[in-house]
Parts: sequence; C-alpha cells; structure tokens
Amino acid sequence: MAGSLTLRQALLSPRAVAIVGQSDDAAKTAGRPLRYLRQAGYAGRIYPVNARRETVLGERAWPSLAALPERPDHAYIVTPTEGAVAAAEECGRLGVPVATILADGFTDASAECRSRVERLRRLCAETGIRLVGPSSLGVVNLRENVLLTANAAFAERDLPVGRIFAASHSGSLIGALVSRGIASGLAFAALVSVGTEIDLSIGEICLSTLDDDDIGGYLLFLETLRHAAALRAFAREAAARGKPIVAYKLGRSAPARELAVSHTGALAGEDDVADAFCADCGIARVDTFDGLVEGLPLVARMPLGLANARPRVGVVTTTGGGASMAIDRIAASGVAVAAPSAATLARFAAAGIEVAPARLVDLTIAGARYEVMKAALDILLAAPEFDMVLAVVGSSARFHPELAVQPIVDCTGTEKPLLAFLVPEAPEALARLRAAGVPSFRTPEACADAIAAAARRRRPKPIIADVGGAAPADGRLLDEAEAGALIDRIGIARPPGVIVEATMKRGPTLPFPYPVAVKALSSAIAHKTDLGGVHLAVRSGAALLAAIRAIRAAVAAHRPEIAVDRVLIQPMVSGVGEALIGYRYDRDVGPLIMVAAGGVLTEIKSDRSLRLAPVELDEAHTMVAEVRAFAALRGYRGRPAGDLEALARAVVALSQLATWRDPVIAEAEINPLIVRRDGEGVVAVDALVRVG
Amino acid sequence: MAGSLTLRQALLSPRAVAIVGQSDDAAKTAGRPLRYLRQAGYAGRIYPVNARRETVLGERAWPSLAALPERPDHAYIVTPTEGAVAAAEECGRLGVPVATILADGFTDASAECRSRVERLRRLCAETGIRLVGPSSLGVVNLRENVLLTANAAFAERDLPVGRIFAASHSGSLIGALVSRGIASGLAFAALVSVGTEIDLSIGEICLSTLDDDDIGGYLLFLETLRHAAALRAFAREAAARGKPIVAYKLGRSAPARELAVSHTGALAGEDDVADAFCADCGIARVDTFDGLVEGLPLVARMPLGLANARPRVGVVTTTGGGASMAIDRIAASGVAVAAPSAATLARFAAAGIEVAPARLVDLTIAGARYEVMKAALDILLAAPEFDMVLAVVGSSARFHPELAVQPIVDCTGTEKPLLAFLVPEAPEALARLRAAGVPSFRTPEACADAIAAAARRRRPKPIIADVGGAAPADGRLLDEAEAGALIDRIGIARPPGVIVEATMKRGPTLPFPYPVAVKALSSAIAHKTDLGGVHLAVRSGAALLAAIRAIRAAVAAHRPEIAVDRVLIQPMVSGVGEALIGYRYDRDVGPLIMVAAGGVLTEIKSDRSLRLAPVELDEAHTMVAEVRAFAALRGYRGRPAGDLEALARAVVALSQLATWRDPVIAEAEINPLIVRRDGEGVVAVDALVRVG
Repeated sequence: MAGSLTLRQALLSPRAVAIVGQSDDAAKTAGRPLRYLRQAGYAGRIYPVNARRETVLGERAWPSLAALPERPDHAYIVTPTEGAVAAAEECGRLGVPVATILADGFTDASAECRSRVERLRRLCAETGIRLVGPSSLGVVNLRENVLLTANAAFAERDLPVGRIFAASHSGSLIGALVSRGIASGLAFAALVSVGTEIDLSIGEICLSTLDDDDIGGYLLFLETLRHAAALRAFAREAAARGKPIVAYKLGRSAPARELAVSHTGALAGEDDVADAFCADCGIARVDTFDGLVEGLPLVARMPLGLANARPRVGVVTTTGGGASMAIDRIAASGVAVAAPSAATLARFAAAGIEVAPARLVDLTIAGARYEVMKAALDILLAAPEFDMVLAVVGSSARFHPELAVQPIVDCTGTEKPLLAFLVPEAPEALARLRAAGVPSFRTPEACADAIAAAARRRRPKPIIADVGGAAPADGRLLDEAEAGALIDRIGIARPPGVIVEATMKRGPTLPFPYPVAVKALSSAIAHKTDLGGVHLAVRSGAALLAAIRAIRAAVAAHRPEIAVDRVLIQPMVSGVGEALIGYRYDRDVGPLIMVAAGGVLTEIKSDRSLRLAPVELDEAHTMVAEVRAFAALRGYRGRPAGDLEALARAVVALSQLATWRDPVIAEAEINPLIVRRDGEGVVAVDALVRVG
Repeated sequence: MAGSLTLRQALLSPRAVAIVGQSDDAAKTAGRPLRYLRQAGYAGRIYPVNARRETVLGERAWPSLAALPERPDHAYIVTPTEGAVAAAEECGRLGVPVATILADGFTDASAECRSRVERLRRLCAETGIRLVGPSSLGVVNLRENVLLTANAAFAERDLPVGRIFAASHSGSLIGALVSRGIASGLAFAALVSVGTEIDLSIGEICLSTLDDDDIGGYLLFLETLRHAAALRAFAREAAARGKPIVAYKLGRSAPARELAVSHTGALAGEDDVADAFCADCGIARVDTFDGLVEGLPLVARMPLGLANARPRVGVVTTTGGGASMAIDRIAASGVAVAAPSAATLARFAAAGIEVAPARLVDLTIAGARYEVMKAALDILLAAPEFDMVLAVVGSSARFHPELAVQPIVDCTGTEKPLLAFLVPEAPEALARLRAAGVPSFRTPEACADAIAAAARRRRPKPIIADVGGAAPADGRLLDEAEAGALIDRIGIARPPGVIVEATMKRGPTLPFPYPVAVKALSSAIAHKTDLGGVHLAVRSGAALLAAIRAIRAAVAAHRPEIAVDRVLIQPMVSGVGEALIGYRYDRDVGPLIMVAAGGVLTEIKSDRSLRLAPVELDEAHTMVAEVRAFAALRGYRGRPAGDLEALARAVVALSQLATWRDPVIAEAEINPLIVRRDGEGVVAVDALVRVG
C-alpha cells in the first residue's frame, strides 16, 4: 500500500477520490458517483476526470489523472472496458493506492478479455496498486458519506447508518440489502460490490476492516467460493474477535451454479462443499433471502461454542397454529425443539399458568397477557433444558404489543438468546423488538433458517500453515501397489495381495484360499470397474487364468492404448457394509475429507458428509453419524452392527493427508472400505491416489 | 338442514344469530362476538344469550335460547366446555340449523371428553343440526359483516373485502391471514375456523360455498388430513369450476406431526402421503407462509392442464444477482428454468436489445428502461419455449416503477402467466403489480414455492364410487399361498413354489434346481426375515432340511406361540435390481399406491413415490422416474438396464386393488419385486396381503 495509508483507509475512508470517466449526464450510470457523493455530503476532495469536457454536472472536470493537484486515495474508474484498463494503469503509475473498476468484459474466454485481465494482474504486481472489481458497482461507507458507487439504490437519501459490513459478488444486491434493511431494522456501516475479484477478494476486503470497532458483523452475498483461502483467514479472525458472519451463497441448484460460472467467470463447486466450508469457517450460511436480512442479530447472540452441541430450542406462544409452523421448520432443519422438563412444568403450575405437558408451551388458555407472557419467559429463560427460547406471538402483536411483545422486550439482557416470530403483519412490534436487540422474524422460514445456519457453524480450526491458495497441479496417479503402500503408511488395514504377471500360463500358488478378487494393475486406469478391469469371487486357479484373460481383453477393448501387464490378486473381503472415504485438495476450498456409504446408490443420492481436513476423532464420528445410510450399520432391525469406531478412525487417518508435504496428495479415495462387524475393523479394498 | 336454508346460508349468511354465553366484559374472549358484529354493522338480528344478566355490553340479554322471539339461523356458543354441550343440545332441540362451538376440551383421551364428543355426535344424528368446531374461533363473512368470531384480530376496522375463502384448523391463523393479506394485497370474502371438525369438516364447508360466484379461490391452513374424502370431493368440484386451492399443511417434521396429534386429536400421517394427496386433488400445497399468502394469484393463472408437463420458466431481469436467487430456488424445487431459443435470441437482436445467450435474460447491459423491458417481455411471452415468464426487477422498482415495473403491468392480459419478484423493498411497486393482477412476490423463496406448488398439482381423478371415508377394519393377514394366488390374479409374475410339511424327514424332490429359498408359511408372521423365518441360497437337500429346522427353532425362539407347520420352497430369483411396491387403504387419504427401491437403505432414506390409487401406465412411469435409486437401473455407468416398463405395469396392476370389493384389500406389499434385465420382466418374490 502506497504511503502510510492502510488498505481499509484507502478503500473506505479516502481523503480524496477521483472519478475517472464521470459523465455529465446524471441519468447515466457513469453520471451517478459524483451526484451521490455530493448529495451525501462527502467531506473529502472529489476529482471528476473527463478528457472531453471542461465541466461535469456543473463542476470542474479534470482532463486526466496526471493533471490532478494531488494524488487521490481512491479512484473509481467508470469508463468503458478498454479505457478502464488504461485508466487503472495510469493510477498505478501515479501511485494511487486503490482503484475500483466498474466496467465488465473481464470474464469471457476471448483473447482480448484474457489480455485485459493479464494487464491488470501485471499492473498490481508491478505497482502495488490494489484493485476492486472489475464489474464493481462501487464502495459505500455510510458513516463517512463515501458513496463511491454507481448503484442507483444510493440515490435514496437519509440511509440509516449501522454496524454491519456487507460485501457482495453481485453489485445490485448491495442496493437491495440497504432497502431491505430499512424495512427490517438492519443498518450498514459500509458496503462493497467486489465484482470479479481480479485482485482484492471478499476475504481480504473484509479482513482489512476487522479492527474497526464500529463494525459489529458481516453480511456476505456469495456467487462463488473463489479465493476461499482469504475468506477462511478472514472468518477465523472474525471468530476470534466474536464478530458474526452471515452468508447467502448461490448454487443450491445446477442451473444457478452454471449461472455463477457465466456471471463471474468462476468455477462452480458442489453445493455441499460450500456448506462444509462455511460451517468449518464459522460462517452462518443461510438459505433464504429473509434469513440473510434478518438473521445476523440471532447469529450474533449465539456463541460459536454451541457448535456441534445441537442447540435445544424452547418455544412459547400465544398461537398454537403459528408456533407449529415455526416448530415444523426448525425441526425439519435438524435443530431440536425441546419440551419443558417436569421441573419447568412445576414452575409454571406454581406461577398459576396453565400449560399442557407438550413440546410447545402454549399460553392460549392462560391468555395473551403481559404478566403471563413475562412469567413464562422468565421460567423458560432460566430452564436448563433450553439453549435458546423462541416466542411466537399471534394477533395481539399487531395492535396490542403491550400484551405479549413488551414482555419479550423486557426480558432482553439475559444470557440465553431470546428470539421472536410474529405471526400477523405487525411491523411496529417488529421494530420495537429489533430496537431492543431481540432477533425477530416475520416468517417461520426465516426464523428456522437463521437458527439452523447459526447452529451449523463450527469453531474455525487452525489453518495448516504452508498450504497456499492454489491446488496441486494435476499430478500422477499411483498404481495399486504404490497406493497400497500409502494406505499402509497412514495406518488403514488392507487385505493381503499377490502381484503376478498377466501373461502367466498357470494359476499361481496363493498364500490365501479361494475365492479371490483379481484387478488390473495400471496407474493409467482410474475406474477399473468401468473398464471390466476387476473380477470378484474367482473360485479356482483355472477361473483365475480365465479372469485375467477377460480383464486384458476388456481393457484392450475399451482403451487399446493401455496394456495390462500385471494383476493384483487379493482374498475376497466381506463385511456388513461398505463405505467410501475420500480426501482431496479441493480447487475451491482446499483440503477436504469426505465419508459416504459405498455402492452405486450413494453416488446417485449424494449421501455424504464433508469437512475441511484434517479432522479429529470426535468430528469424524459426527461425520459418520451424518451419513444416513450408515443407520443400517447400527443394528438396524436385528442386522449386525458395523465397526463405525474403526470407520471414524480411518476418516481421521485419511484426513491427515492434508498435512503431508512430500508427496503432496491431490486426491485419495478408498472405495470400497469394507466395514466389518463391530470390533473387527475396516479394510481398504481399493484405493485411488493422485499425488500433486 | 332445517327449513329451506342451505348450509352456506346458515353458516355464512345467517339472518339472525344467537351468541350463547356472550359476556358483559368486552375484554374477555366471550365478550368479543357481539362487539365485532355491532362494530362491523351486521344487518341481521343479534340475540345475546346470558342466563345470569339482564344486559350485556349495554344490550338486552336473553335468558335462554328457548326465550328468543325467533329461531336464529346460526348460534355461536362461547360458554365453557360443559355448558357448551348442553347449549348445542338446546340448539338441536329448537331446530337451529348451525351452531359453532368455541370451547376446547374435546380432544383428549379422558372419559369425560369422549362422552362429550359422543353427545355431540348423537345430537347431530338425531336432530340434523350441523356443528362447526369445537375449538372454533368462529365464522367471518366480510361481505355481509358477519363477524361471528372471538378472534381478536377482527377488532380491526375496515378490513378489505375480496374473493378468497379461507378455512383453517388453527383459529388464530384466520386473523393472521387477514393482516398478512392487507400487506400483500390478498383480500377475503369469508374465513372459517373449523376447529376439531366433529361434524362439519373443511371439505364440506368449502364445498358448500363452491356455487358462490363471488368466491374465486380457496386458501387452506391444514394441521391434519382428517376427513380427506370430503376434502377430495370438494377439491374435485373446485377443479371442475376452475377455482384454485392453495394449502399450507403442517407436518414436514416429526415434532410438528406430534403436535398436530395433541392439538387436534387427529392421527398424523406421513408427510409424503399428504404431498401425494394434495397433488392428486389438484391442491397446490405450498411450503412457506409467504407462499400461502402470496401464491394464490399464480396458482389461479396456471391451468391444471400443465399437470405433469414440467412447466418451463423463462426469467428476465434487471439484476443478475437477484434473478440468480430466484432461479436457484426454482430449479432446486424441480421446476425447469429454460433458456431462450436461438429464434428468441434473434428477436432480441432484431429489437436492438443486447442479451447474452444464457439461461437468464439479463437486461443489465441493455439498461432498466421501459422500452427495453416492455420489448423483452413481449418477446418472451410470445416465445414457445416458455410456459410462464418471471420478471425479476432490481433497485429501480423501489423509486422508479415506471422503468421496469410498469412494463410488467402493461403486459397483463396475455394468456401465458407473467409473474414478478422484486429484489429491493418496494411495497408500492408490489401493490401496483398486484392491483393489475400480476402474481408478485417479495422473496425468491415464496416465488419458487408458489411455482413449484402450482406445478406439482395433477388434474383430480375420478373418485371410486363406493369407497367410503372409513378404512377397512384391521383384517386378516393372508398366508403366503393365499397372497400368491392374489398376486397371480392381478397378473404379476411369481417364481414357482413347492409347499412342504415342516416336519418332513428327507429333502423333497423339487421341480426346479438348487439353490432355493425356504420360507416359513404362516399368516401369523408379517415380517418373516426379522424372525429368522427365511433362508436363502440353500444348495442341497441336506441343507434344506437343516434350514427348515433352523427356521422352526428361530421362530419358536422369537414367538413361541407360533408353530411353523409348513414351509414354501422357491428357486432363487436374480435380477439387476429390487423394488418394493405397495398398496394400502390409507387411514387418512384412502387408496394409495407406492413404489420404492428395495433393500434396507430405502427404508432408512425414504426414496419412494406415492399416488392415490388406481393409477394408469403413464402415471406409473412418472412414479418410477421419481424414485432416485432407480437411476441405477437405467444403464448407469455401464450397468445392465432393468425392465422398468414391467415395473410400471406391476404398479398399475397392484393399484387396481383399489377397485376390489370382494375381498376389500386393506394392504398389499410386494417386497422384493425383483427387476430383471430390460425385456425380462419383474418377479414378485414375497408378498404381504391383509384383507379388510
């Protein structure tokens, strides 16, 4: 960073700004930044740059950046694409610390486009300038009236100023968030449209603001996990400072992932990888737009220490039907809705409040009165069986908030989170609750979404020191013997094996009995089964020779360039179930460990659990518990139980590949991992390993 | 119905009403109905009945129903539980056609409670009176100012009057719907809190209003599918008249189903049964509260003829990020988001509108201007590749609806549904759209929810004439031989079998080779495998005798009262996959047909497809396509394809049990149904049949 300015200062608190390409037409996109800065009363110096005009919007226009009387801290380049690169280069030459680029045209596959990107990259490397964008609708600091933006939403006056920092891949969303926030009591300190992140990423931008005491939390709109390492570093620091992060990430569906690709030029990963990444970073990934807008106060109230502890929600209501909607959603999202204990029910009875012994504390009969609701909340907030309390208020919330809403307001300040969902349309009661700091929701869906997103977070784990942002380049596939040696090294059991020449004429003498499995041994084949390269349950020497011939013929038919010279012979291994465990250095999020049920159905149904690697044993057990198919290995309907302890230990062992440096492992998959009866361990029958 | 009044008239348009138990205290629940009726200006006669007072709320109180100068058309009984039954009985004696009961205390398992319910049932049978409730917060007809309700939400004045009829198991929800409706442009003709439906059910109440031309659609809040036959009859008639039904049904989660049980006294069914029932009735079951409030205009615009056709949605936007949220949700809900065709792109080019060839028609570059949006909508609404068009509008919607919202308004009247989602907070633009009849949404989730709910509906099929509302009483389990005969009769292939005495001393001569399967033959055993009653792959006569001994010992160990006298011997049947097909007369919804993948994993993961029975072949194919695991039988990764045509035919055959009258089949499950290679059919290996 040039001079003594920090990144945050140049980005968000510039003392002087240039608007390169500022238009004289206030209706045009390039006409907006000057107008918005003036309208907001920005106190710094503003230098409109326009080579073709003496004035813009009635102010002096400067012919070039070089002509300015001082070096601005931040330049917003709003010229069209080609001019934008040249303008950025001029900023670099002049030592402008930060430039934000509006233009698009930096994401397609054309040669011009790639050349533009290359010029910008070189510029950053050579001059140290930091770039926001391209495709950035700008940077807004509402506290200091820095409206360096072309987003039309900022034409609105008197925007509320708050403590939230928002960063978004979508430029239009920063405007939508501001107006949604006005209606929902969410106010922003600053907002950044990060565009396509050629240089500064969401993670680095947010990280630069972490020491700002006036920023209390972060709200992210993500189209991709590009630059995940920076995002992870930021999230870890934010967790250390107790600053909550809520994120909405596109990509639940394949079409949306495809759009993100065309929209941002990013690669699109699998959605459950994004889930695992966010959770392991302590980021509350919400699933709904209202959850994004309304969720932060709740996430802020829920310590990360609740992580993995499955929070138990107590629900109290003046409306059975409305509360049932919330409970339905909360329970469907995997969070436990707990019933009051006998001791708690006794306290209700002692207070003279009639409630039925059910999961829901329904005050309908007792009546929607202040004293009843206040006493009920006091009892529930003190009850150890609940980690948080949700109050669902019915019709009275609309015109008589003094009855059942005010008691909620009057219970703030307790350590246990207390939140509210109002069933009728009741904007004034919602505002009253929010002003008091009560996390409050206008739909059961947003309420459950925020609870589940907060509950799914885990405390961020240490980042392994010397793993960079880049995945290992496509490396070499190990053959079966090499892969077997690696599996031995990490300590997962394998069946014994004999390697023989595929051209042999007599069945070999084996150190184990028939039946056996025979597999082509070649590092050129990743999926042996698909090519006919595996024969199972071979019962005799003659059958073995026939199987080897068949394997050679099948592989030759599919892939004539591969000669199968050797085969691996192993005893058949049987167990009570199969698992698949995999490690990979993911392109987006880095080291990743996965466990899934084995077999073809699992591939189709995507029943798997993911974490950033490495993991410890507790976490591996949680992962195994998350795979629904493994329920069949817990003694389901009289079937034998499998050794899930050994399975979890194998997950831990494989995840340690994240710490290897020589070789660096790009990918390692054990499939199948045979799960034997409880106490008998697991056996890795086949492994596919690619080194970096 | 007494006199010449229709049910609808007495229920919703009474000329005179009695309020039995009307309190003099306006703050009490029992004080409300008189107050609300007077405040609304109800034009009929009102008779407050209160035996202990001369006046209530300043009006004359009558000592008893018998003392009234005329027989009211409708009595609202707001006395406590015990008095309520006596009051209803008096209504019956006096010939009051309809009484609505506020009190609760009719759903628990106590003897008093059961006796109260019994008295009410007898009353209906003996006098012909029709009852709403108990636990009914009342009946509201906004057009005629009939505010016969104790719901505090109706203290609000000047409620908008519209064309929607709402019915709800939850009484508080009718109030919440009214206030939510005010904010969302949804206005009601009438609302009924149906309570616990001891007599009048939601279906019968709604059916009674179908001929009312001023009612344009129905909005249901369901806690249970109790009285599903009446609901189905209503839904079928509504579909015939083109009147849409949107329903929110609790019960996505087990805790909510459990609550519905305690709350309404109903039994709770599985949630996918409710999904299948609603879809087969043409009811749009929404998944979100906003979807319930905002969804009806869209459902009304989507003809049921789109059923099973997988509607294709075209999306146009002024904000890429906002539209991506909507697309993500829509696609994740299984609805196709279609890309414009080459011809459509050519029309954009001809109109001078720059759009990229992507799934999303993004006008960001072309600009949020009236002419651009209007031309884009005209092109998309005329394009044959879309069944509906969604316009997603960004920041301009908030303060400049003339730019991109007005063009949507100006496109109404086209045959193809056009809908809108506004990304910023933009209540005025939403109101403008809704006033013009454009289905409009404030969140991407509600938008996608409504589209998916509308798309999931199927045209209601004929109701089989003589199936009543009651399920066959628990009947007799057929033994394997009887069940086999039934399977033969409906035309599903079975393996040959030999029945032998379990006490035989030598292995029998079999008409098929070893290996064989041996099964205990007893109608007392429903799940033979669980009791050790099945041995598979038995390879010789000696092994067969041993297997029979083992079966007898195992069954004797588990269930000493069952003697296994005979066993069934069948050849082992192999195929490329397994299915489970089942028919049952469901307690809630009547005849139901199911297909699922076989095996233990399916039970755990609930991968199945359901329909009301019987089904035809097209529908059976759709069902098979809905089971994700069957993807493995479509030639997945080089595996052999299974005979899914035969599987679908077997589903059709089994579903025909719905038409059987002698015997009536309560339940029939074929598990496993072996699926052989394509062209080789399916084989029913085991069947469990219970007759009614």
